[in-house]
Amino acid sequence: MDLNADLAEGFGAWRLGDDDALLDVITSANVACGFHAGDPTTMRRVCAGAAERGVAVGAQVGYRDLAGFGRRRIEYAFEDLRDDVLYQIGALDGFCRVAGTRVRYVKPHGALYNTAAADEAQAAAVVAAVVDYDRSLPVLCPPGSVLARLATGAGLRAVAEGFADRGYQASGALVPRTSPGALVKSPDEVAARAVRMAVESSVRAVDGVELRLPVESICVHGDTPGAVALARGVRAELERAGVVLGPFVQAPQDER
Amino acid sequence: MDLNADLAEGFGAWRLGDDDALLDVITSANVACGFHAGDPTTMRRVCAGAAERGVAVGAQVGYRDLAGFGRRRIEYAFEDLRDDVLYQIGALDGFCRVAGTRVRYVKPHGALYNTAAADEAQAAAVVAAVVDYDRSLPVLCPPGSVLARLATGAGLRAVAEGFADRGYQASGALVPRTSPGALVKSPDEVAARAVRMAVESSVRAVDGVELRLPVESICVHGDTPGAVALARGVRAELERAGVVLGPFVQAPQDER
Amino acid sequence: MDLNADLAEGFGAWRLGDDDALLDVITSANVACGFHAGDPTTMRRVCAGAAERGVAVGAQVGYRDLAGFGRRRIEYAFEDLRDDVLYQIGALDGFCRVAGTRVRYVKPHGALYNTAAADEAQAAAVVAAVVDYDRSLPVLCPPGSVLARLATGAGLRAVAEGFADRGYQASGALVPRTSPGALVKSPDEVAARAVRMAVESSVRAVDGVELRLPVESICVHGDTPGAVALARGVRAELERAGVVLGPFVQAPQDER
Amino acid sequence: MDLNADLAEGFGAWRLGDDDALLDVITSANVACGFHAGDPTTMRRVCAGAAERGVAVGAQVGYRDLAGFGRRRIEYAFEDLRDDVLYQIGALDGFCRVAGTRVRYVKPHGALYNTAAADEAQAAAVVAAVVDYDRSLPVLCPPGSVLARLATGAGLRAVAEGFADRGYQASGALVPRTSPGALVKSPDEVAARAVRMAVESSVRAVDGVELRLPVESICVHGDTPGAVALARGVRAELERAGVVLGPFVQAPQDER
Repeated sequence: MDLNADLAEGFGAWRLGDDDALLDVITSANVACGFHAGDPTTMRRVCAGAAERGVAVGAQVGYRDLAGFGRRRIEYAFEDLRDDVLYQIGALDGFCRVAGTRVRYVKPHGALYNTAAADEAQAAAVVAAVVDYDRSLPVLCPPGSVLARLATGAGLRAVAEGFADRGYQASGALVPRTSPGALVKSPDEVAARAVRMAVESSVRAVDGVELRLPVESICVHGDTPGAVALARGVRAELERAGVVLGPFVQAPQDER
Repeated sequence: MDLNADLAEGFGAWRLGDDDALLDVITSANVACGFHAGDPTTMRRVCAGAAERGVAVGAQVGYRDLAGFGRRRIEYAFEDLRDDVLYQIGALDGFCRVAGTRVRYVKPHGALYNTAAADEAQAAAVVAAVVDYDRSLPVLCPPGSVLARLATGAGLRAVAEGFADRGYQASGALVPRTSPGALVKSPDEVAARAVRMAVESSVRAVDGVELRLPVESICVHGDTPGAVALARGVRAELERAGVVLGPFVQAPQDER
Repeated sequence: MDLNADLAEGFGAWRLGDDDALLDVITSANVACGFHAGDPTTMRRVCAGAAERGVAVGAQVGYRDLAGFGRRRIEYAFEDLRDDVLYQIGALDGFCRVAGTRVRYVKPHGALYNTAAADEAQAAAVVAAVVDYDRSLPVLCPPGSVLARLATGAGLRAVAEGFADRGYQASGALVPRTSPGALVKSPDEVAARAVRMAVESSVRAVDGVELRLPVESICVHGDTPGAVALARGVRAELERAGVVLGPFVQAPQDER
Repeated sequence: MDLNADLAEGFGAWRLGDDDALLDVITSANVACGFHAGDPTTMRRVCAGAAERGVAVGAQVGYRDLAGFGRRRIEYAFEDLRDDVLYQIGALDGFCRVAGTRVRYVKPHGALYNTAAADEAQAAAVVAAVVDYDRSLPVLCPPGSVLARLATGAGLRAVAEGFADRGYQASGALVPRTSPGALVKSPDEVAARAVRMAVESSVRAVDGVELRLPVESICVHGDTPGAVALARGVRAELERAGVVLGPFVQAPQDER
């Protein structure tokens, strides 16, 4: 099982989250690429830290919107979104190269993640960027999403992820952040849910139904107070349950 | 002899220069990388057009300054400048990859070009970025500049370039834009100077002295009215004089 | 009758449209305020030029999106959109102050114009910004739009505008740019339509129906080749038809 | 005596400093205006909080450089710097207007502060912007600086400020941050120095010399851990010493 988190989400003088502490916990790092967050110096440092620890680096691609942190939907033309995503993957890959590794997967961020999960045009633009850049890169996305379907259809590997600290509806969709049950706050419960996702491929939905949720990666959030402690708790419980942790994608063969 | 020009210098709705027309004239394209100019869609299109024509793509790296078009000096910390340059090279290389080619050289833009020509710290940051990314990439720079010296010292190939439409001082420095003789305006004279640079490795300085100026590339400007006609005139005169035109750097062996 | 056009839409080294020529033709200038276009130096120059000629200055407020020129819809939180609009009005008013005048109306740009015409939340944010800043400022908007309704409801003056070079549907909506009849290309026809709008408050829709369209301002576009000639033609025909041209809003009483 | 601090220095999702806590301590708020920090929603909130508490709002104008937080020098053309400063003052004044107050002074930020203290051209650009916008606005600057001299020469009021937590050279210049003695770290010592500045108009320089330093405002930093506690300590000691605290500039007569 893989544990992923968003990293490098500061910008210049502004910091967000504790990149170094999270790198010791997770197995895959979604590195912000400069459009919604992530300055080059931070990207480089996180790539180096990830490579040292064997943590896989993924391109956390987002809308061009620093002021909105990539969290507000933008209606892009297809080519513009495709090429904005491509640009970000390439930029991050340069820092991976310096760190002796490579971009190993792509994960859309924020409003692009949510939009590409349901919107054919934006999902297609993300898929086109990955296909153009490197067809061997998996795309991390919600199970059953439009993005997962289009990625698979284009010959890409779609890697399903679950959120241990988010409530699920019986349909498999997340409970909206504005509804009750959206967030699971007890660290013990978050860890227990992660174990069930990993061991039994299931999660209890807000209405009590057991939901089948086969995921290859579990996302832990990095930008909230207590995020690091929560992530450590998830990792410790997974290990106690005998779950072997590691990136969902193999290291490049030519890794130095 | 190589002919280089700045391309992809628009941004979004704003256009600058005639990229397509210049691609038919030059042999090396300095492609803007998004920090001072150059949106991803334009970068991609120019890379594709260059690859189709066998024009070499270089990373025209600049300061992070869209409002100033990279033309005003910024006092960067070493790491920040190095990593801003690296980010831009990586981003452009992604589009080159899509076009079946690669970034084949690096040329600083505007105020970074002028600063790195004389300032040890900024020159060192540019050199460090290229060394980190790919030591096989040449750096296009003024002959005798600090950048040329540091690049050579770091094991990089420094490629000297001349400006057929700019006046030179006897020292080899350009006549400042604010002084008389800074610009050569007659198309015939510009073309004649290019031929002398290519055939005799010399240029007449503003004080009449013959200046030895061995260059491997001649820069033609792309953003002025009449730029395309001027470039065509230079190319035609060079060919008439029997100068063989082509990129100063070989195509990558794995070029598709 | 008022003639308005978008001005100051360059940014730094990039120019768009011929601000000076248009200032001699129009009576109201929608000045871009820096978020989708418009650098401070250009804004200042256009404000000065407008004040000299008695042309009214309006705040052409847009999304924070230089790369998209404000032409792609962004899902803003209410407060963020309201305050982005307010920021732009204030910034422009500073330059008006220097020029001895004031911002005299507000007109949303591009995707914000289209969105606020139909979307309650975004229209309400624009209205809230104007109410907060200065209730005496009119809002320029499509007749019958949600923005017009909310503005009126909040006690603002909603000024209806028509487009002489755009096709109309029988409903009063513009023909979408992707449909036949979206653009009226003949300069003579554009001028004739402007005269009918001004004199008879009507326009012929694409299906031939005569549509009643009472407008207080006619928009001419400034960013296309031939824009200035087209605008001059519209003005000349309006004057020939005896239409008195002038801003729809009076000069501030304390105008210097 | 006035106590000033930098506020509104977050941007979007990124926060910096505790604006609300500092507003309870200081008497003048240098509000970031969006070019190096400060999004519109934060600016508005801080202006409202300042107005409620009778804290004077000043425009903390900076270079257009979010990535560098305005801390790296940029070589601006005179007009561009003047108009960038003007734009920021106007934008902030809009939020002041909404809060029922006005921009009451101007303080350059970061590298612009340091550059304008010594560089004639940049100091002149800042002064020109203030003169153009409103000659009644004081400029907060280091005593004896080029900025103070040019401001005074242009008829502006130059308000001298001191730094209780920074070391001074015998010349009156600050000890550079890279030299020993640059920072005074003991909260007790910082408070004691503030009292001496306020009561005796002097400070002990790093070489032990007593330096005369007549200031009208003391700057406390807001972006470091412990900043709020430090500021509270300074305020408490000043009050204990009988120093009356209040803005150096009167409230506008038409304050609502």
